[in-house]
Amino acid sequence: MAFRHVALVGKPAPGIGPVIEQVRDFLRQHGLRVTLERRSAEAAGIEGYPVMEPEELGQACDLGVVVGGDGTMLGFAREVARFGMPLVGINQGRLGFITDIPFEQFREALAPMLEGRHASERRSLLEGAVWRDGQSIFSGVALNDVVVARGAAAAMVELRIHVGEDFMANIRADGVVVASPTGSTAYSLSAGGPLLHPSIAGWVMVPIASHSLSNRPIVLPDDAELRLELVAGRDASVNFDMQSLTHVQLGDRVTVRRSEHQSLFLHPEGWSYYATLRRKLRWYEGNS
Amino acid sequence: MAFRHVALVGKPAPGIGPVIEQVRDFLRQHGLRVTLERRSAEAAGIEGYPVMEPEELGQACDLGVVVGGDGTMLGFAREVARFGMPLVGINQGRLGFITDIPFEQFREALAPMLEGRHASERRSLLEGAVWRDGQSIFSGVALNDVVVARGAAAAMVELRIHVGEDFMANIRADGVVVASPTGSTAYSLSAGGPLLHPSIAGWVMVPIASHSLSNRPIVLPDDAELRLELVAGRDASVNFDMQSLTHVQLGDRVTVRRSEHQSLFLHPEGWSYYATLRRKLRWYEGNS
Amino acid sequence: MAFRHVALVGKPAPGIGPVIEQVRDFLRQHGLRVTLERRSAEAAGIEGYPVMEPEELGQACDLGVVVGGDGTMLGFAREVARFGMPLVGINQGRLGFITDIPFEQFREALAPMLEGRHASERRSLLEGAVWRDGQSIFSGVALNDVVVARGAAAAMVELRIHVGEDFMANIRADGVVVASPTGSTAYSLSAGGPLLHPSIAGWVMVPIASHSLSNRPIVLPDDAELRLELVAGRDASVNFDMQSLTHVQLGDRVTVRRSEHQSLFLHPEGWSYYATLRRKLRWYEGNS
Amino acid sequence: MAFRHVALVGKPAPGIGPVIEQVRDFLRQHGLRVTLERRSAEAAGIEGYPVMEPEELGQACDLGVVVGGDGTMLGFAREVARFGMPLVGINQGRLGFITDIPFEQFREALAPMLEGRHASERRSLLEGAVWRDGQSIFSGVALNDVVVARGAAAAMVELRIHVGEDFMANIRADGVVVASPTGSTAYSLSAGGPLLHPSIAGWVMVPIASHSLSNRPIVLPDDAELRLELVAGRDASVNFDMQSLTHVQLGDRVTVRRSEHQSLFLHPEGWSYYATLRRKLRWYEGNS
Repeated sequence: MAFRHVALVGKPAPGIGPVIEQVRDFLRQHGLRVTLERRSAEAAGIEGYPVMEPEELGQACDLGVVVGGDGTMLGFAREVARFGMPLVGINQGRLGFITDIPFEQFREALAPMLEGRHASERRSLLEGAVWRDGQSIFSGVALNDVVVARGAAAAMVELRIHVGEDFMANIRADGVVVASPTGSTAYSLSAGGPLLHPSIAGWVMVPIASHSLSNRPIVLPDDAELRLELVAGRDASVNFDMQSLTHVQLGDRVTVRRSEHQSLFLHPEGWSYYATLRRKLRWYEGNS
Repeated sequence: MAFRHVALVGKPAPGIGPVIEQVRDFLRQHGLRVTLERRSAEAAGIEGYPVMEPEELGQACDLGVVVGGDGTMLGFAREVARFGMPLVGINQGRLGFITDIPFEQFREALAPMLEGRHASERRSLLEGAVWRDGQSIFSGVALNDVVVARGAAAAMVELRIHVGEDFMANIRADGVVVASPTGSTAYSLSAGGPLLHPSIAGWVMVPIASHSLSNRPIVLPDDAELRLELVAGRDASVNFDMQSLTHVQLGDRVTVRRSEHQSLFLHPEGWSYYATLRRKLRWYEGNS
Repeated sequence: MAFRHVALVGKPAPGIGPVIEQVRDFLRQHGLRVTLERRSAEAAGIEGYPVMEPEELGQACDLGVVVGGDGTMLGFAREVARFGMPLVGINQGRLGFITDIPFEQFREALAPMLEGRHASERRSLLEGAVWRDGQSIFSGVALNDVVVARGAAAAMVELRIHVGEDFMANIRADGVVVASPTGSTAYSLSAGGPLLHPSIAGWVMVPIASHSLSNRPIVLPDDAELRLELVAGRDASVNFDMQSLTHVQLGDRVTVRRSEHQSLFLHPEGWSYYATLRRKLRWYEGNS
Repeated sequence: MAFRHVALVGKPAPGIGPVIEQVRDFLRQHGLRVTLERRSAEAAGIEGYPVMEPEELGQACDLGVVVGGDGTMLGFAREVARFGMPLVGINQGRLGFITDIPFEQFREALAPMLEGRHASERRSLLEGAVWRDGQSIFSGVALNDVVVARGAAAAMVELRIHVGEDFMANIRADGVVVASPTGSTAYSLSAGGPLLHPSIAGWVMVPIASHSLSNRPIVLPDDAELRLELVAGRDASVNFDMQSLTHVQLGDRVTVRRSEHQSLFLHPEGWSYYATLRRKLRWYEGNS
């Protein structure tokens, strides 16, 4: 597979302009057409160069290159989820789980990938919705997680949770995280959840600061719809990838199911999921 | 499906004789042929009644009825794993995860099941082996878990772990548990592992008292072979379902992969996995 | 010690009127003068009976009787902390850690206590303050905990923490709990903290959903001032006993030190801290 | 305080000879009399130099210098605990919690300490004993922890635990750790325990792989005797600092109380407990 038209996205941060321009020029030197994401171009102060909205990029391009951290990648991946565009991440700072190419080495790393020599992995997406009085009042897609949580002034939320038609449990906690395997290395992990290999067809559900001492994270099949109904707690909210917040009220139901779309991430050849874990988590490095 | 020939197994404990006889008589009254497992008959002091070894029962019978706790069921399920015989568990004491029919109600519970009105669920099995100098020196099947652990006089084991051909991590700990979804409610849970719904095609790997603070349980796909090599630690052993112990020495490799066989458990209609969790784990019951 | 003047406090909840009246009448029959806390009297709809504000009660009375749950007790104990008044808790619902006399048995339990036959235990109090530009903008006392936490729309707070003059750590998390031994059975426990016996002269500091995998709760001496400075995170707040909320901004410092006052709780003779733990936490009850 | 006579101890490992000789010569150049611990001298292959047993060193010397890791220090500190000799630790490898002077810098670090410019800290010691039929069959001192644990072939131990005369709990687990503040950074931490600042007058009790989901570590006052009675479990043992193992049988009681002695550790000026924690535990270092 030869790529032809690349969507280029950058983290809207100071100094991103020259960074984006270097990547853009490199891609053009390899014979690729490059279009910038509009907000990235604005943040970078790049004018007079073709730009598009994420949705247009999803339709027009056959490769996305994201320069930034995992947060930037998460945001763009959600926006183009339904187009199946493969994505590559270049990281300026500390390497991320997904954005795993260091900026200093992007040329050496990208060159073979543009010729088709790369590893790839599909990541499942969560499709979440909020229902009030039988109507969907919000819906969205998440790559990492859907989080229902209490407000700062409330002591807890109580959620009544079903898996498909089966009642699972009533949970009283600061909140509940439903995370994909991708999200199992993010907020879910902070809340005490296990790591899920990306090939696992499941979500992990983790309470945050549960009032019950006998709670444990649980890994649930991703082909059943999860339903979390708010039965107690003021000022609660639901969050998609910790980037999009919606307030929920008593009786509201949050549903989570597997999206029909997947994200496709490309990595340099020889990429190893476990090596990334070890590096990022200092996983199992000794302390003694 | 009409059952015809039942293998009847009992926990070898005081007072088991009359219990087995009541179940046997009930089954015979329902027109079923019943054969006792030899050790159960001996423990029960039942003489002059047909008995067989587990292996023979696996070949001859089309239903297994186990009277005892989850431990008794685990032992028998392992022995007949390759025959695909469906199993039912009757519990005299506190209900188990698998042995979920209380003895006082076994007649009401079993009667419809014998007529085919039951829930059923398949549980995957772990196939473990120990390799020394390229030779398999032990192998076995586990329903719950394979555990590699230090001896009492050693400070730790260090295990070098691969998933398929990928190096995962070096773990220094009291030991490492590899558990099936069935085993995720057993020792793995005590060691800090998450719950895995039985339909999840994965194992959970949990260190016991890891020397590293950044360890976390990880859920791995069950279609890859796990390999745990003992690289440090004296007096270590490997355990299948905490019932069968083999000593391992430096350089030995323990492999775990998915058995081609599965256990098939039958439950009364309306059985709910989540209700069992809530009951057994007092899961998410409040403390406040 | 013979008590003479009792402050009577009730949880402002439906149906509290007759409950307070029964306790009041019982106390008066034992020759005690009884004054109601003003808000309790209003909530109970009791008119024409002497009432006082908490502060006045603290000065005038030599015993406080609280009818309600631990939350009601916490609120009143904070208000009268500096008066040293001994406190007794009667619970209408599920027994609390502190409010451990069931309403149905309050007469049998209180009678000997009024004659001086009781167990007593002192509980240390946290004194917290919020500092901005060198000025204290808020201060208060807590019996359970002081919690600094992120707002719902923020990803985390980052706190720079000192113990006395020693830098301890930078913590990035949903928040940080500093709990007294009394509070070690409350929110701190949900966040993963250990139990602290009431006689331990220390606080436990527990991060909530820490971004670091190597975090652990730490027990710190209560004679050193803790200082938590907000170095990152929007919309953060500090909470005393989860009942009093103050917003904090970047650069604000929250200090926690041991109050010079203590709360004094009375219990029926034979009261056992460990029995309370076992009952409330279903502590170490088996699951297997 | 000017030191005069130094006890010099080395880890019995290959290559220790020249290391001990360098430290010895340095100490002698500073006008100190130096006596080697007998086993250290033998392991180092040093002949013709004064040696003593640990007990004699404790009586004769006013400073102990240990070259090795925390394990070597633990062993020697236990042996001389009752003599109150201050101890300094030099570490050849990765720095320990106690042995915190890198060998490469031992001259610069020790020189001011020998002149009295040092930080010092006292650490409490656990005094443990095993009782059978009312007789003490074993006793010893531990700096880190006393651990009662199951044997490899047993499923668990069940311990009936009292604090002073109060029954605390029955715990079924792989084992139970009772750790001092010093030991709170060792095995107790692996088992899930909190950190205890050295000034905390308490022990932390942590179950290892508890069968109960509602267990939590608990910090207990160190002025009460703990009593752990083995009520179930085969092949159990008790371990002091993971260095000295004694088998226990059903009905045996293990008691733990605070030793009347303390260890006194010296550190270079400016030493910080929290800096040591951050370095050793990579404590609260970010992963995101």
